[in-house]
Amino acid sequence: MKETEFVIEHEVKLNKPILIEGLPGLGLVGKIAADHLLSELKAKKLGTLYSPFFPPQVVIKKGGLVDMMKNEFYYWQAEKDTQSDLLFIVGDHQGTNAESHYDLCNKILEVAELYNTKLIYTLGGYGTGSLSRSPKVFGAVNSKTLIKPLKSVGVSFEKSGGAIVGAAGLLLGQGKLQGIKGACLMGETHGQIIDARSAKAVLEVIQKLLHVDISLSQLESRAKKTEKMIEQVRKQEEEQAPMPPASLEGPTYIR
Amino acid sequence: MKETEFVIEHEVKLNKPILIEGLPGLGLVGKIAADHLLSELKAKKLGTLYSPFFPPQVVIKKGGLVDMMKNEFYYWQAEKDTQSDLLFIVGDHQGTNAESHYDLCNKILEVAELYNTKLIYTLGGYGTGSLSRSPKVFGAVNSKTLIKPLKSVGVSFEKSGGAIVGAAGLLLGQGKLQGIKGACLMGETHGQIIDARSAKAVLEVIQKLLHVDISLSQLESRAKKTEKMIEQVRKQEEEQAPMPPASLEGPTYIR
Amino acid sequence: MKETEFVIEHEVKLNKPILIEGLPGLGLVGKIAADHLLSELKAKKLGTLYSPFFPPQVVIKKGGLVDMMKNEFYYWQAEKDTQSDLLFIVGDHQGTNAESHYDLCNKILEVAELYNTKLIYTLGGYGTGSLSRSPKVFGAVNSKTLIKPLKSVGVSFEKSGGAIVGAAGLLLGQGKLQGIKGACLMGETHGQIIDARSAKAVLEVIQKLLHVDISLSQLESRAKKTEKMIEQVRKQEEEQAPMPPASLEGPTYIR
Amino acid sequence: MKETEFVIEHEVKLNKPILIEGLPGLGLVGKIAADHLLSELKAKKLGTLYSPFFPPQVVIKKGGLVDMMKNEFYYWQAEKDTQSDLLFIVGDHQGTNAESHYDLCNKILEVAELYNTKLIYTLGGYGTGSLSRSPKVFGAVNSKTLIKPLKSVGVSFEKSGGAIVGAAGLLLGQGKLQGIKGACLMGETHGQIIDARSAKAVLEVIQKLLHVDISLSQLESRAKKTEKMIEQVRKQEEEQAPMPPASLEGPTYIR
Repeated sequence: MKETEFVIEHEVKLNKPILIEGLPGLGLVGKIAADHLLSELKAKKLGTLYSPFFPPQVVIKKGGLVDMMKNEFYYWQAEKDTQSDLLFIVGDHQGTNAESHYDLCNKILEVAELYNTKLIYTLGGYGTGSLSRSPKVFGAVNSKTLIKPLKSVGVSFEKSGGAIVGAAGLLLGQGKLQGIKGACLMGETHGQIIDARSAKAVLEVIQKLLHVDISLSQLESRAKKTEKMIEQVRKQEEEQAPMPPASLEGPTYIR
Repeated sequence: MKETEFVIEHEVKLNKPILIEGLPGLGLVGKIAADHLLSELKAKKLGTLYSPFFPPQVVIKKGGLVDMMKNEFYYWQAEKDTQSDLLFIVGDHQGTNAESHYDLCNKILEVAELYNTKLIYTLGGYGTGSLSRSPKVFGAVNSKTLIKPLKSVGVSFEKSGGAIVGAAGLLLGQGKLQGIKGACLMGETHGQIIDARSAKAVLEVIQKLLHVDISLSQLESRAKKTEKMIEQVRKQEEEQAPMPPASLEGPTYIR
Repeated sequence: MKETEFVIEHEVKLNKPILIEGLPGLGLVGKIAADHLLSELKAKKLGTLYSPFFPPQVVIKKGGLVDMMKNEFYYWQAEKDTQSDLLFIVGDHQGTNAESHYDLCNKILEVAELYNTKLIYTLGGYGTGSLSRSPKVFGAVNSKTLIKPLKSVGVSFEKSGGAIVGAAGLLLGQGKLQGIKGACLMGETHGQIIDARSAKAVLEVIQKLLHVDISLSQLESRAKKTEKMIEQVRKQEEEQAPMPPASLEGPTYIR
Repeated sequence: MKETEFVIEHEVKLNKPILIEGLPGLGLVGKIAADHLLSELKAKKLGTLYSPFFPPQVVIKKGGLVDMMKNEFYYWQAEKDTQSDLLFIVGDHQGTNAESHYDLCNKILEVAELYNTKLIYTLGGYGTGSLSRSPKVFGAVNSKTLIKPLKSVGVSFEKSGGAIVGAAGLLLGQGKLQGIKGACLMGETHGQIIDARSAKAVLEVIQKLLHVDISLSQLESRAKKTEKMIEQVRKQEEEQAPMPPASLEGPTYIR
């Protein structure tokens, strides 16, 4: 693969869907929220995004099968008139350098436009350095018209001056240039811990926005699993620190 | 957006304008000076430069609207025969890597040539490590013919051997290759502080060069605002230090 | 050379060969194993891979001839009906940045497809941080059908959750997308030492898989030579630390 | 400029010239030697190499004129039958990242082939960590046929195992692929100091190879000037350490 590629796996027609982005970020708030939402809604796989800008590796899954680095699109079709079809972009990775964030965002928007996406919600965390028992959800939008409806479901617009890094931000910025409205919903979070409580706050807001009703009881255990998995990886990392193959990389230096 | 793009927002005809560059650099001298000049002259927006070489993020403005990373062109039309039309390139960012400085400079010159720009003044700071009560303005040019007129308005050419990094330098270097004359005006500055006094010195010189007369009384307060904004961002940064999503970025290392 | 290039040196027809990858990685296990295998089988040179993504240097070989950075393809033609033709990709370097791993992997697969490669074995080490007297061989596959035959020759599938970085991983991940089955065979290794014993364990497995019979007696001495060579290079590195040509790289900083 | 460009400044016909490379490297040995040689031979300017892979800056020369980053080609036409025409590539910079070394080397060879270059001598230093009163000249070649003539003028081939980084190495490696023979002549040098004595040793060898006779009396003073210039730049660097425009580069981090 020489450039970022979308491989469609399931042909489906969507009716002006809302794109939900939940890629990894601060406190993994957005990832946990989006993964939980699509799992509870039993969203189906639409296709996969491969990119030479993801880390150059595969991961070994249980049983020994390897998995390419990727982002995945899922879709969910509305059950009621009050609901919108949904398109999800989720995964374990964002780009490995500054320009690649733009590249991946381009491709995500390209797919979103393929399905006539009319609105984008990007999910993330807003770090405060402290733990809150009842985390707020802060909003940022690319169109003024979105502020009122968001406020009406409890989103706060008191924070400004920060930056939204990666897909959660660029999808709004570039989306605007392409005429797609969008909002970022950021759960208040400490910043140094994986935060299921903050993800829950974001999900409570998103449920109201999407008029869907999902169970949040498994959320805590999902976050615990994520934490355990990370702990395991950290332990393996210590054991497997790579040896720099000195003789093979940059030997004596004559210029 | 896959490459650096100029989005024109206002069709206008300019008469061989002078390009003023005021992107961020040492002491923010050039940025403060250019921002103040265009604000006092009530220069109008011409268009916007977007680039995948800017930081991959959006900023949250007061009220919750997000803003793409960008540079902006402004223009000002001469009121008297002795004056030249002006074209400004300003913004909060330069390129994120070495090559991107060349790319952005190419695009700025492309727009400059679209409007038949005949001369370039790039504004910046010249760091000395000490505070001066009456900062000098040092000059560097891409054509000998510019030295005499600059000296006559008080620009000093006593410094040499240094390098001018980023747009302030490349616009002169590449400009020369494309046949556009240009000078860099550098206010003497400490280097570690935001320096309104140095920006004032630069503005006093540029006023004489451009035959314009603007008030400098708001300059100090503009610099104070910039300083306050930075302080606020620094505070937020401490609160929002991102958690490296270890399990998601570079786990165990088998090759 | 402007992009990764395959220079063929010997025209040959291969019958659905198996590709063996042994580029440098953890403990140099894969490299030592692959180099030993092709040497014992007297595999012949097929061609060379040059790339601007290898380190920008040449090495001085004994006698004073310089050598470009490169990877090399070797081939071996089966002697019995039970054996498969083999294609080797070996060398002293992998890519110098994240994207280049994808680029080099593309090119290796392109050559592999040229010869109708039907299966890939990538060889590597699996770091545990401790020394094992009888290192296991862990497996990872891109197709479930490969697990049973690998288990039957003693490959263990008890490890999961790690990542396989570089060609050893990407050849499986991308290979799958292109319809080529593949397995990674990882010898249990400390991680910080060059590990001939682990390479031996990998070779014992690969011999059974390929139905070839080679001597392993020279393996230890091969590993010792590699170790000695590295020691020598490290010593030279200390003597030859480059002087940063300060005045010539990034002098005074004015922006 | 969007890619590396050769701008010809003087049309000239050369008779199968020898290319002499003297770009900055260890101890600046190669640069000092090549600069001195072309100056003493009164070589003339042929053209200039500009590249977005050079540092994104201009330097301020005495008097206030700015200078783009560049490499320069010079030429010298033989005066006797025993001599060859010469083509020089010199400058203050090499590429800013690994791939750019390959790119610049491609362009240099492109120009060399334009003039039917038949042979390349790249000049450099070979670091030993100690000071030698009578530095040796070590050689490395891309063709065995060059060893004997080099040995006959005192070049030593006792060193091996090291790497030649940058243009001095790649011109030989890539040159070989394009059918141009070449040798690297490396003066024994400490590595941490600018070394005119080592450059002198290289020049004594190169004079014999080229059958030219130049004065070496100015070499010491040339090296002293270089040293002084570097000292001055270092001093300015301390004064002009740039202030990271924090608020403008990477503010709060929400993902």
